[in-house]
Amino acid sequence: MSLNYPAPIQRLIVQLKSLPGVGPRSAERMALWLLSAGRERGGLLADALRAIETDVVMCEACGFYNQAGEPCLLCSNDKRQRHIVCVVEQAADVLRLERSRAYQGQYHVLGGKLSPLDNVTPEDLRMDSLERRVAELPASEVILALGSDVEGEATANYIADLLRSSGVAVTKLAQGMPAGGGLDHVDELTLHHALQGRRAMS
Amino acid sequence: MSLNYPAPIQRLIVQLKSLPGVGPRSAERMALWLLSAGRERGGLLADALRAIETDVVMCEACGFYNQAGEPCLLCSNDKRQRHIVCVVEQAADVLRLERSRAYQGQYHVLGGKLSPLDNVTPEDLRMDSLERRVAELPASEVILALGSDVEGEATANYIADLLRSSGVAVTKLAQGMPAGGGLDHVDELTLHHALQGRRAMS
Repeated sequence: MSLNYPAPIQRLIVQLKSLPGVGPRSAERMALWLLSAGRERGGLLADALRAIETDVVMCEACGFYNQAGEPCLLCSNDKRQRHIVCVVEQAADVLRLERSRAYQGQYHVLGGKLSPLDNVTPEDLRMDSLERRVAELPASEVILALGSDVEGEATANYIADLLRSSGVAVTKLAQGMPAGGGLDHVDELTLHHALQGRRAMS
Repeated sequence: MSLNYPAPIQRLIVQLKSLPGVGPRSAERMALWLLSAGRERGGLLADALRAIETDVVMCEACGFYNQAGEPCLLCSNDKRQRHIVCVVEQAADVLRLERSRAYQGQYHVLGGKLSPLDNVTPEDLRMDSLERRVAELPASEVILALGSDVEGEATANYIADLLRSSGVAVTKLAQGMPAGGGLDHVDELTLHHALQGRRAMS
C-alpha cells in the first residue's frame, strides 16, 4: 500500500472534489491550503455551510432564495409589475437580469433545464408551480429567458406548449449580436439569428 | 441597492472565494450547487472541514500530516533509511516522490519556499527544525527536491549555506528532459540544463 494522506484529509479532498469545477488536483491543493492557512479558515467555511442549511429557504412562489423568516425580496416588492413573469433556469440568472436593469416584473426559477441525457424531466423542474402561478397572478406575458443551447430551446418549447391553453403571451429573449463586438467575434449561428431578426433603423 | 443573494449565501460565496483557484463566478456556482444538491452535501463538507481541525496534526519532525494520536507514517517506519533526508516545499510533494518509488529515506516538509515578495522569510519555514534534525538523525545526505523556479533555487541555496558547517552532503534533483517527450516539447532552459548535465551512455 502506498503512502497517502491521513483519512480526515482524504475525506475532505473527496468532499471538495464533489464541488462543480473542482478536479482531484484542485481539491488536494484546497485541502492543503486549508490545513496550512490556519485552522480557523476551515471553521469559517464550515460555519458558512451550516448557515445556508438553517438560514436560507427557497421562495415557494418564485424559486429564488430568501433569508429564513423574511419575505421574498422579489415577490413582496410592490414596485415590481405583477402581470409579467420571466422564467429562468437558475437563481444566478435572476441576478444577471437584475443587473441589466431592463426588467421590473416577477421571476420564476425552474431549477434547471430539460435534459433527457441527465434524467431531468418536467417533474424535476418547477413547471407545475409555473402553470399555477400564471393562472393565479394572473400573468399576461411569460418571458422565457433560457439558454440558447439545445436543452434551453427544448425547455422553452415545452413551456410554450404547457401554457398554450392558458392564453398567456409567451415570448423569448431576442437572439443576435452581443454588445460591443464586431462580426469577427460571433459564430455563424449567431449571425444567422441576427440577420433573421434584423430591425428597421428608427 | 440592487438585488443580491440573502446574506448567508453571500457569506458562503466569500468563504468559497478564499479557496485557492476559486474566482467569484466559481464560488457563486459552487454555492448555488450546494443549495440545490440537497442540504446534506454542505453538511458533509462542513463535517470534513471540522474533522481536519480536530483529527489531523502535523508531525513535529518531518512536517507531514498525521491522524491525531497515531505515530507518523513516515518517521515511524523502520524500513525507511534514516541517514538521508529529502527536503520538499509542501506535503503534496511527499506523495509525488513516493509515487515515483525512487526514494526510501526521511522527508522534511518546509511548508513553502523563500519569497521576499510574499514576505516568506526563513523564520516562516521549517528551517530550524531541519538543521536540528540533520544533527540528531544524524543525516549523511540532504536531497533538496525543490521547485526549479527562482524561489525554489533561492531556497535551495539558503539551505546549502545553512548546512555547510554541519558537513552533511547536500544534493539537488537532476534537471533535464522530462520522460516521454521530444525536444519540441521542452523549453530552451530545460534543454540547456539537459545538455550541461549530459551523461555517458552505459
